[in-house]
This record gives sequence, C-alpha cells and structure tokens, in this order.
Amino acid sequence: MEKIEIAILGLGNVGQGVVKILQENTEKWRNKCGANIIIKKVLVRDPAKKRDVSLPPDVVTGRWQEIISDPEIKIIVEVMGGIEPARTYVMEALAKGKNVVTANKDLLAEHGRELFEKSQAAGCDLYFEASVAGGIPIINPLKQSLIANNIEQVMGIVNGTTNYILTRMTQEGMGFADALKRAQELGYAEADPTADVEGYDAARKIAILASLAFHTRVTFQDVYVEGITKIRPKDLSYARELGYTVKLLGIAREESGQVEARVHPALIPSSHPLANVYDSFNAVFVRGDAVGETMFFGRGAGQMPTGSAVVGDIIEVVKNIEKGSTGRLSCTCYEHKAFKPMGEIMTKYYLRLHVIDRPGVLASIAGIFGNHGVSLASVIQKNCEDGIAELVVITHKVRENDIQDALKIIRELSITKEIANLIRVEEN
Amino acid sequence: MEKIEIAILGLGNVGQGVVKILQENTEKWRNKCGANIIIKKVLVRDPAKKRDVSLPPDVVTGRWQEIISDPEIKIIVEVMGGIEPARTYVMEALAKGKNVVTANKDLLAEHGRELFEKSQAAGCDLYFEASVAGGIPIINPLKQSLIANNIEQVMGIVNGTTNYILTRMTQEGMGFADALKRAQELGYAEADPTADVEGYDAARKIAILASLAFHTRVTFQDVYVEGITKIRPKDLSYARELGYTVKLLGIAREESGQVEARVHPALIPSSHPLANVYDSFNAVFVRGDAVGETMFFGRGAGQMPTGSAVVGDIIEVVKNIEKGSTGRLSCTCYEHKAFKPMGEIMTKYYLRLHVIDRPGVLASIAGIFGNHGVSLASVIQKNCEDGIAELVVITHKVRENDIQDALKIIRELSITKEIANLIRVEEN
Repeated sequence: MEKIEIAILGLGNVGQGVVKILQENTEKWRNKCGANIIIKKVLVRDPAKKRDVSLPPDVVTGRWQEIISDPEIKIIVEVMGGIEPARTYVMEALAKGKNVVTANKDLLAEHGRELFEKSQAAGCDLYFEASVAGGIPIINPLKQSLIANNIEQVMGIVNGTTNYILTRMTQEGMGFADALKRAQELGYAEADPTADVEGYDAARKIAILASLAFHTRVTFQDVYVEGITKIRPKDLSYARELGYTVKLLGIAREESGQVEARVHPALIPSSHPLANVYDSFNAVFVRGDAVGETMFFGRGAGQMPTGSAVVGDIIEVVKNIEKGSTGRLSCTCYEHKAFKPMGEIMTKYYLRLHVIDRPGVLASIAGIFGNHGVSLASVIQKNCEDGIAELVVITHKVRENDIQDALKIIRELSITKEIANLIRVEEN
Repeated sequence: MEKIEIAILGLGNVGQGVVKILQENTEKWRNKCGANIIIKKVLVRDPAKKRDVSLPPDVVTGRWQEIISDPEIKIIVEVMGGIEPARTYVMEALAKGKNVVTANKDLLAEHGRELFEKSQAAGCDLYFEASVAGGIPIINPLKQSLIANNIEQVMGIVNGTTNYILTRMTQEGMGFADALKRAQELGYAEADPTADVEGYDAARKIAILASLAFHTRVTFQDVYVEGITKIRPKDLSYARELGYTVKLLGIAREESGQVEARVHPALIPSSHPLANVYDSFNAVFVRGDAVGETMFFGRGAGQMPTGSAVVGDIIEVVKNIEKGSTGRLSCTCYEHKAFKPMGEIMTKYYLRLHVIDRPGVLASIAGIFGNHGVSLASVIQKNCEDGIAELVVITHKVRENDIQDALKIIRELSITKEIANLIRVEEN
C-alpha cells in the first residue's frame, strides 16, 4: 500500500484537531483513501511546548527548511493562520510541486490570485474547504456539485462569534457589551474581538465565497464591511415586532454582470432559513439558476469541525496523488467582472430616528424621503421622554446613495435629534 | 480543446432539464471543465414525440445499440428511472468502460452492489448526486468533505411530496386526503401516490445515504418503512401543543457497530433545524464525530434542481476523463455491519388512545406501561363525547418491542376503545 507523507504547519487549536483525527484510526484512512497517511513533520514555533497531542519528538520541528527540502513530503497542511510566514511557506511549497491544504482565510482573501496561479503552474492541488464556515462543506459543493449553476447569490452567517452575540441579545435582551463578555468567557470571542465584531473575519470569508460563486477574483479589500457594535437590543425588539431577525450577513450577489460583496448586520424575515440559525452555528444560503435555493448549516469553527474539513481535503489530495490527477480542481476565477459600488446597491432599510414629538414632523421627514425616491413600507412611532419621539421606519427597495442623501438632509433638520441606526433589510 | 461525447438515456422531466442546462451556454462549460461536452445521442422510447427541448434529429434515437456500440461516447447519463431496462443499460455501459451518471434511486437502492462492483472492475466513474435530495449536494459531501468523520446519524426529509402534504395539514389543518389532492393538482404528487405517501421513495434514498455514511451496503429491503396515511390533523395539533412538529423522516444511525435504517413519520422538537423545512423542500441532517451537526437544505426534486445535480456530476466525470482519473471515487462500502432489528431500536413515542372515561383508567394503562419499562414523559387527557376520553402520551426512551408488547395488552383491555395512533419521537 502506498505511503503518503505530509507535513502540518502549526499545532494550535486546528492543527491539534487535524493530528487527533489522523491518529484516531489509521486503518480507517487506508480504507478511505487506499494509502497510509504519515505525519512526517509538524512545524511549530516552540518544539518544547507541552501540547494536547502526542507526536514523536523527531516529528515536531521548528525548522521550515527540514520540511521544504524533503522531497518525500507531498502535502503541506497550513493551519498556522495569518499572512506571514504562511504566505511564504505556501508559495515555496507550491513552487516545489508540493500540494497544499489550507484553512487560512486571511491568506486566501488577500493573496488568493498568486497562490492559485502558482498552484496551477505547478499542477498542484490547493484545497481550502476549512477556510470558510469551518466544518460545513461549502467550498467543494460550490466547485463541484453546484457547478452547473449560474450562482445568483451567496448569503451567509459566516462568523459564529457575532451570531452568538446577536443570539444572546435577541433571546435575552442583553446589551452588546454584556453579550460580548459572555462570548469571551466561553472562548467564542478573543480578547481583542475586533476582527469578529467589526465584520473583518466575515468579509474575508465572503470574498472567498464570492470568488468561487462568480468566477471572478474578489478580495477582502473589495468587500464593504460594517460590524455589529452599533446594534442595540431595542433594534432587535423592533425587528421582531416587524417580523424580522437581525443577523450579521455576508452577501455576494451578481446582477447584470456586476458583482456586489458586503458584510453588515441585516434584518431578515423571521421565516427565512437563515433566521433560525442560532448561537455559534454558521450557515450559507446559495441561490443558483438551476438548483434554486440551497442552504448549508453547521459549526463554522472549533478544533474538530475545522479539523474535519482539513482532513477531508487531505484525503482528496491523497486520492489525486494516487491517480496522478493533482490540479484537477484548478482556479475557477476565469472571468473579470465589474464591482457594483456600495452606493448603487438596491435594498430595503430599517431606520430608527429620534425626532421632536410635534405635529407635522413625520410629514416633513416623509416628504424628504419622497423627494429622494425613498418610499416607506411601515412606520412605528413611539413616544420617548422629554418630548422626543422614536420613529422606526422600514423602506421599500431603494438605492443606497438615495437614502444616504435623504438622511444627510434629515440629519440637519432642527426637528431631528439623532439618526440612531440604519440597518439594511434583506428579503431573499 | 478536448471534446467529450455523452449519451443521455431518457428525455422525460429530468432528461430535458439536463439538455437545457448543457445547451444554455456552451462556452461556460469550456471554462468550467476545459472540454466541449457534446450530446451525441439521446435514447427515447418514441423519437417522434414532441418535446420541450430542441435536438438535431440524428441525436434522438430509439436504439440502445447505437449508443452502446459507439466507442466515442464516454459518459452515459441515465435519467430514465425504474429498474429495467435502466439496470441492463448501465451494466452494459460499465462493462464497455463507459462512465455513468445516474439519478436513479430505485436502481441504486436495490442493485447498488453489482453496479459499484462493475464500475470498480472497469475503473469507471459511477456518479449519483441526483439520486437523493435532487439538487442538494449530499452524496459528494458525504464521499468527500465529510469523509474524515465517523458518521453517527443521517436524518432527513427526503421526500418533497409528503413534506408538502404534512405542511398543508400542519399549517391549514387540512385532512390527509385533501392535502394529497392539492399536491396532485400542483404536480407534486403523482396520480398513484403510493411510492411517496407510503414512504418507499424515502426508503430508497435513506438506503443510499446509509450505505455512504456507514460504509456498509444498505438496500431498500433493509429499511423499515411506514408512510403518512395514518396521520390525522389532530395528531399534528397535539404535537404542536407539546412543542413538536411532525415530519416524514428517513433515519439512519450507527451505534456499537449496528446500523438502523428506517422511514416513518416522527415528532421532532419545533426548534430542530429540520422542523422548519416546509412545503416541498428537502433537508438532510448529518451528525459526525468531528464535524458535529450539519444540515443540507434545498429542492429535492424538479427538472432544474435535479438537472443541476446531474450536470454537476457530468462535469466531474469530464474532469476525471481529462486527468485520466476515472474511478477515483470508488465504492465506499468496504465494511459489513450488522443491522439492528426494528424491535430493538430505542426511541420515544407519541401515542393517542381512546379509552372509556372513568376513574382509574389512566392508572391501569400507566401500570401496564410500567410493567414493560415504558415510562411516561407527558400525558394530555381530553374528554370526547359519549363517555370516551382521548389520551395523548409521550414516553421516555424505550425499546420498540417493549412498547409494542405493552400496546398488545392495552389493546385487549375492556376500557380501551382504540389505539388511534403511534408516532415515534426523534429528539436529536
């Protein structure tokens, strides 16, 4: 039986998951891929550090040179994260004809093009199922099972931390800060939660998904990003009153050859399949012209779910090595589509405004909206204290620039105390 | 650029969908798989019949011999359905070294073993994504992305017709017959709805999924089957009162090396992801030891969704032909696991009984349950007319044989008018 030697870069949370899965039942792997998978080297910063998994001492190394110069190592499993040195290692590995499996969304969302070009030139595999939505199969379904479709939309809850926070705020009425604290206590959020709560993590994932869905390179920089820090429990309860749930969504859409890619909180109808995705679960909703609506749901992070995706990719690459078919799934960004500027997107909006509570105020505001082509689908007005009314509005579909222009004028009115929030509304 | 010639067997609903997708944009296919896909022949019973798609007259043929004897045809796309002549054609094609893509669940669930043995011997591809849950990617995810897992459970709504019927009964209080009539009017149910409403269609699909999940051959005959014809609107409203929703589920589970596979209506908690899958949508819920819970949702039938899955498979096979890697996804049933007899399964039960309404009746019944190890989780008692009470019970987990034994005794009691329904309860 063939023996396939691999090296793992990084022995953090995900790296340890990969080792655990591969060590668990070696006979299983022989059945599943017809080969013995040997973990020949594991690259770590500090080989002396105590870890949860046991590996022979000659396997754990701090020296990349030992790995890159070993011609027997056929697969590099990059689970170190971050841009450097991961980028250099992956590029060097591909240049040497080694296949790569990576879980690194940052790297792919920023340097995808050069990585795929390198892998294609070398005829190597570059697999990355774990980079988006952890254990949920979504990369391979987009590259394979759904390939017959013109994908119209990918919309997903692709960050478990913010979904957990929004779930606590929705179900228990907690404020953002308390919910974040709870997420940190449970290990869902990091000490510095910026990448999660500001939407950067989700933006990297939606860049990867959009690139696959629309066959055009979308990078992190191309994605409009807005996080969840401005969401108040009040917004969530108004949303519920109006039949909606608030989620941090990654949205990628193609219309008339133009691609839009954005991450922001959004109201979605409570009956939408994504609305019932709670806690730290992730889900990706895909609409294609042939398949219609599909959704993929599961754990978007965590040692074992992410390890599941990484090892699934390793097995695929092993099969390709055995069949001499590495490189069979090449880069699919063979088009160059235009991006739609954020100001041009069309959607509905939820607005919460504080205005002076006197007759004619609603008429003035509605008039300004009307002049900018913004028509209102529903309005809730509640009296606050001190002669201030809270006005909650859901608009019909309108161009982003038009509503922003209207708001600029409304903000300057003497009757306006504050535009407390603007949240987009996604209905399909 | 390479040219790959294919033949399609059958030009019914799905066959026409496949032709539509392949004809829509030929340049797209060149980008997606680096080859020109040529529909060289389409086998039909009556070549003269008018159809929705336009094909050159020399392409449409009534003669299998023209196809099987043509060495240029590399892929046979079997979308005719039924066992014969599909089985003979597929076996002959594989024997000649042709790759096969099929949407035929009947064929796979009953003759899977011989088909896979033949394809393996010939080094050919045998792809079947469309055979279960239409357009939803579930076969390839189980064979690839999730392969690192020991799958513990596959549980799915895999028949859209019955899900539509149950949705109407649940949401509108319709009776079974009316809901079936509505489904027939909409084209969701056939004139003879037996295969759908009796659960046979779902059983074939769960046999295929169980075979993949547990790496052991499960055939249609191995699956316990019960349909939805005995479900009454009353059961659905009691279920809701108790926090459950009723779905026709296909369930496949492995525990201690024993496999169970069954199809029957079941109460599931209303918060379960499957509970919110309405109308004719399908969904498959998979639990693996590494990935945890995942779910795949979408359209389980229809011309274009099923066509999407078939064409996705065709593209995969084309790539394998180009790379010389056909046969890379071989049969995965490399184990021989025991089946758990239906009497040995452990689950909870919902029971609806009609009993004479007098003191002590509940005590007698509870006593008999107690003697058989059946303990009750909740009981609702409502008075009907003429001195009859309706008793609705949810049990704790108990062995199927034990509750059936208890019911045999209860059925014979003079106080028992009728055991109106027994529905299993699945909580995870």
